[in-house]
Amino acid sequence: MRFLILLVCLLSVVASADHGDIVGFDAAGSATQRDIEAMLDASIDPREMDGWLRTMSAKPHHVGSPGSRENAEYIAGLLDSWGFDTEIVEYEVLLPTPRVREVELVAPQRYSAGLREDSLDQDPSTSVRDDLLPPYNAFSIDGNVEGELVFVNYGIPEDYEILERHGIDVSGKIAIARYGKSWRGIKPKLAGEKGAIGTIIYSDPADDGYGAGDVYPDGPFKHESGVQRGSVMDMPTYPGDVLTPARGATKNAKRLRRENAPTITRIPVLPISWRDALPLLSAMGGEVVPEEWRGDLPITYHLGPGPARVRLRAEFDWNMVTAYNVIARLEGAEYPDEWVIRGNHHDGWNHGAADPISGQVAMLAEAKAVAMLAREGHAPGRTIIYAAWDAEEPGLIGSTEWAEHHADELRKKAVAYLNTDGTSRGFVNIGGSHTLERFLNQIIEEVDDPRSEISLKERARARQLVFADDDKEKAEARERSDLRIYPMGSGSDYTPFLQHLGIASVNFSFGGEGDGGSYHTLYDTYEHFTRWRDPDLLYTATLPKVAGRATLRLANAPRLPFDFTAFADNVAMYISELEELAKKMREETEHDNALIADGTFAAALNPYRSLGPPPMKDPVPHFNFAPLKNSLDRLQTSAAELAKAASGNDATSREINRLLYTSERLMTRDEGLTGRPWYKHHIYAPGFYTGYGVKTIPGVREAIEQRDYETVEQQIAVAASVLDGISQRIERITLAVANR
Amino acid sequence: MRFLILLVCLLSVVASADHGDIVGFDAAGSATQRDIEAMLDASIDPREMDGWLRTMSAKPHHVGSPGSRENAEYIAGLLDSWGFDTEIVEYEVLLPTPRVREVELVAPQRYSAGLREDSLDQDPSTSVRDDLLPPYNAFSIDGNVEGELVFVNYGIPEDYEILERHGIDVSGKIAIARYGKSWRGIKPKLAGEKGAIGTIIYSDPADDGYGAGDVYPDGPFKHESGVQRGSVMDMPTYPGDVLTPARGATKNAKRLRRENAPTITRIPVLPISWRDALPLLSAMGGEVVPEEWRGDLPITYHLGPGPARVRLRAEFDWNMVTAYNVIARLEGAEYPDEWVIRGNHHDGWNHGAADPISGQVAMLAEAKAVAMLAREGHAPGRTIIYAAWDAEEPGLIGSTEWAEHHADELRKKAVAYLNTDGTSRGFVNIGGSHTLERFLNQIIEEVDDPRSEISLKERARARQLVFADDDKEKAEARERSDLRIYPMGSGSDYTPFLQHLGIASVNFSFGGEGDGGSYHTLYDTYEHFTRWRDPDLLYTATLPKVAGRATLRLANAPRLPFDFTAFADNVAMYISELEELAKKMREETEHDNALIADGTFAAALNPYRSLGPPPMKDPVPHFNFAPLKNSLDRLQTSAAELAKAASGNDATSREINRLLYTSERLMTRDEGLTGRPWYKHHIYAPGFYTGYGVKTIPGVREAIEQRDYETVEQQIAVAASVLDGISQRIERITLAVANR
Repeated sequence: MRFLILLVCLLSVVASADHGDIVGFDAAGSATQRDIEAMLDASIDPREMDGWLRTMSAKPHHVGSPGSRENAEYIAGLLDSWGFDTEIVEYEVLLPTPRVREVELVAPQRYSAGLREDSLDQDPSTSVRDDLLPPYNAFSIDGNVEGELVFVNYGIPEDYEILERHGIDVSGKIAIARYGKSWRGIKPKLAGEKGAIGTIIYSDPADDGYGAGDVYPDGPFKHESGVQRGSVMDMPTYPGDVLTPARGATKNAKRLRRENAPTITRIPVLPISWRDALPLLSAMGGEVVPEEWRGDLPITYHLGPGPARVRLRAEFDWNMVTAYNVIARLEGAEYPDEWVIRGNHHDGWNHGAADPISGQVAMLAEAKAVAMLAREGHAPGRTIIYAAWDAEEPGLIGSTEWAEHHADELRKKAVAYLNTDGTSRGFVNIGGSHTLERFLNQIIEEVDDPRSEISLKERARARQLVFADDDKEKAEARERSDLRIYPMGSGSDYTPFLQHLGIASVNFSFGGEGDGGSYHTLYDTYEHFTRWRDPDLLYTATLPKVAGRATLRLANAPRLPFDFTAFADNVAMYISELEELAKKMREETEHDNALIADGTFAAALNPYRSLGPPPMKDPVPHFNFAPLKNSLDRLQTSAAELAKAASGNDATSREINRLLYTSERLMTRDEGLTGRPWYKHHIYAPGFYTGYGVKTIPGVREAIEQRDYETVEQQIAVAASVLDGISQRIERITLAVANR
Repeated sequence: MRFLILLVCLLSVVASADHGDIVGFDAAGSATQRDIEAMLDASIDPREMDGWLRTMSAKPHHVGSPGSRENAEYIAGLLDSWGFDTEIVEYEVLLPTPRVREVELVAPQRYSAGLREDSLDQDPSTSVRDDLLPPYNAFSIDGNVEGELVFVNYGIPEDYEILERHGIDVSGKIAIARYGKSWRGIKPKLAGEKGAIGTIIYSDPADDGYGAGDVYPDGPFKHESGVQRGSVMDMPTYPGDVLTPARGATKNAKRLRRENAPTITRIPVLPISWRDALPLLSAMGGEVVPEEWRGDLPITYHLGPGPARVRLRAEFDWNMVTAYNVIARLEGAEYPDEWVIRGNHHDGWNHGAADPISGQVAMLAEAKAVAMLAREGHAPGRTIIYAAWDAEEPGLIGSTEWAEHHADELRKKAVAYLNTDGTSRGFVNIGGSHTLERFLNQIIEEVDDPRSEISLKERARARQLVFADDDKEKAEARERSDLRIYPMGSGSDYTPFLQHLGIASVNFSFGGEGDGGSYHTLYDTYEHFTRWRDPDLLYTATLPKVAGRATLRLANAPRLPFDFTAFADNVAMYISELEELAKKMREETEHDNALIADGTFAAALNPYRSLGPPPMKDPVPHFNFAPLKNSLDRLQTSAAELAKAASGNDATSREINRLLYTSERLMTRDEGLTGRPWYKHHIYAPGFYTGYGVKTIPGVREAIEQRDYETVEQQIAVAASVLDGISQRIERITLAVANR
């Protein structure tokens, strides 16, 4: 028995050494490319990366600060010195910075929130406070309001359903929400829609503090004074400069007036630490919160409203500041007009060691290697552009303005956009366009985990096999040869490329074993990162091997590695999810309505408590999914036929490549999504009420979720026509490949 | 739409008024019986019950205290005055009471646990401290130990599996466990088996404190100084006096020497409050606990071992005390040798307002009504015995000794044992022998919820429809005409009757809406009960309507209402659970073993943490369930045939009734369960490693759960023969009914 197992292991080691030809390369090309990649790997120097990390995270460097400009110049200097054609591209963008921040409990007793993070002896960086941005949420409107507190849990739609069942209305009140579950901007957006006059967001120790693990500096989790900064701009409507939607924020660009900018919040919002939240929450009364709403403060949580009354005052300097994007080019030797763009932002909320400098140094290590390879005779086939974005934190501003500014050229020339951002240690995480799923799987088959000497893919698969939530996922991990990459919502600089311009995009990181708590706080320092997130930069130095392979293979592949079978397979899954979603909602609505109508629901509730039954909901009709499923059939057939035609056939041409890389454009429509025309992609979008969280086939999915039944079939027709356009393109590529 | 709904409601009200004949009665008998029950209902006087409650919970009254004797005499006085033939039956039992209790943190700093509950101004009863038993766990062995702390979560078997995966051994250490998940006695039992030298049990505020809701006196939950007392005697081996297993503890009974009593713990154990636990847990180091292990103290929980070192000293006076059982008889007019026994204990850990006096006053209200009915010409057909047990708290001692003492007579004469204990408000909870499921359902169809004016059954069904965990349970609530009663493990005085003697038993209570926290603490007072658990005794006064109907119907029914179809239906469910259990264990073991063997499991784990993969387990073989399923077929067939024969046939006789009520005896075997011969019932038993939690078909279930694969089929054969014995009996009853 034991012998047999050993044998199996040995066999799989032998097998794993042979990865076959690289997608898009023939045998000889694959061998050359792998030689190049061996040189890339050999050139990665964690000590050099550590030096860059230390330098760039030595002081605060948010957009508009001296540190931002200095880092931009530092990055540009490095790239230029390595041989890139480097420029710093400037945009003029609106950036609110806080002038007045006050959170005061005025009844039943008084408490003034400190709103200040402590410097710690154990971390000298936390005493470097020049130019430090204090805790705030960027793009909160100015305001000075006073009202009773209502505890809204995570402040997401289902939380308000519960409050309404308790008869609690946030109108005229101040909502106190905890960080987590949704992107932070959803919390004031929804609170404002519900009539609240202000929002306070705090980090509960259950989510990020002693409840999660030891706190800084004893452990990685959030210090009692730590506050998560962050943008609350309405990014699900559009990201980037709030005054120049869909236009580059150049000096003389046409601008909205600030009062007309739709992505600034309607109500003032400030973030606070759990140390400041404790006196506020302790002073609340009313019904005890539902079990799932309880945090880890040593109190009983109550819903309110009141008796705690709070005055919230937030005023900002609404200045125009300059964002400095570093753009560095290496001209392609064969196809200079086909661009592989590789980006990572450089601005941080404060010292930003993890976010974003850890990703930035991974990108720099990669760029240095690519430049070295070019000098040694391995110039890329296509043009490679390295971009270090400014102003990502307040709303993906640097990348969005550049993408909007160069939209026409990018639509023509961009082959793909590859992104990184803050990274950590653990498992490789890859999100992106599913036309690159096979391509990306091959890369993680060839790069080993730095601790365990198995491939990144095998380690990620092991996690799925052991920890997947359900048996279906475990079975898939056993049976599906490739791991799924995750579909992307928002949260980093790929958004303008993917969702506005329809450029196939990827995001790379490591994570899952470098615990958090420093995110967007004073404690995101070199000391925190190198002690808790990735000591010795073991995984940070593996990232350029992964992303660098993707950059170089995309740049050098004779035939671009886009593949539609995995795309079709994922779309099939999304469509069955949509059908399942409608079915489940239909059954639940029917079940609940019946129980509500005959009084059963009320009879099951505790008459000594305020929670009432939910209101009845409109029954969910049956929808005609046939158009979408017919289009899916065509997509699957055409994808399979292309795969067959392309197998063992190295045919390529400029035209075939153009047809391949512009296929992602066909997933967009000029009209964009309903109510948010900036978002043009019809397969992936950030959720209107989740923020970062992705919605696949968003037109249909959000119509169902929001119970907008009238428009579901209309959206099905739109999605079907998008799929048909892709199928048509695939059929054209098949012909082109077969005819050469 | 609204009209239609109203109509449906009205129809159901009309329909619910007609409940048909009472099981076991003909039409005329049913009418008479219902008239009697109307008189029962009318006689219930909550104000009188409130007076009894106030009197009997005015001061501590544990076994051996003056309060216990006074309450016994008070109860006996009432019963006697109403006309019962009343006696106080005494047993001499071993009862340890604490002499020395010390829990001291000795490193890394010092802290002496207070081990004392605060008196509260808002609750005068908490200042009545004469004869107060301080917090302790009865039947802990004496000990004075010192060692490092290990946090063992709830201290149940799966918690030790996790500790072992972290490489943590409790040998020579002191285990600190939180209350919850298992019966408390399991915690020191298992810690001792694993080599720990002592156990501390504390109440975490997550389970019972501010994390659960407002704390006393602002709310019902556990005060920071509150400590749950309770027995840690090894009751899953045998309950009752530790020195006289299976014998009544009469004055001259043969007794074990204390050092040979197997149900005293092997290691010392003391319970503490979360106020005392905080300094201990804060001083612990080592790995951070798994997410599900986290409590609600404002610290990061660590596994240890150490650096916290604790000295634990517990010494007891091991005195013989007298337990006073009140036994009150009302001779049956027709069948004096058929006994319906109705019991509730009277001893409490302290003031014991909820536990047990709330149940005691419900029983007294019922007894008073039964006596009144007898005086007014409605003497019961069978003998009714009311029993107020002493010494339930330290280990079901009063009831067990009486049951053991009168075992032979009870086996002959006892028709059923009906139990209550502490009660609260909310939903009716009924557990018991499934041969009485139909009978009990009919009762809760006829008694209305005191707040909502629908029947208790409809309210309980509403809860299942709205809140059941899975769709299967919800569907069952829609489709199955009767609600299942729950199978009983242990935890109150029904255990000796049901599991030792094979007397069909039932336990009644209300709960779910009267939040806890007072359980076994100084705060289980009249003030707490009437403010938080059942103000105005609304539900407490409904309990005698339910239990009283059961008592009277069992006493008066011409043909006893035992029915085997529901029994067969429940047994069928248990058997399919067993098959499912084996299948799931087989699949999980196979899945996990494969992942462990090839290194996948290890690869999925965080190399920066101490958690390792689990050890491989022996593969789970396929078991031959056929004998059990064949016996089930016979059981279902015979039950259906009896139901058919008995329908519309009122045939009865002394012999038919004897065959009916002694059918439960056939579920026992003289040999008892493996390793614990005192437990003779083969359908219901408390789990050997859950304590109170029931194991149905325990021989088979525990063999599978404990991976004792060798004995599974042997246990299947035993269980099959038990079922065959019951089927044979049913067939005999069918003949007897058909032939009259």
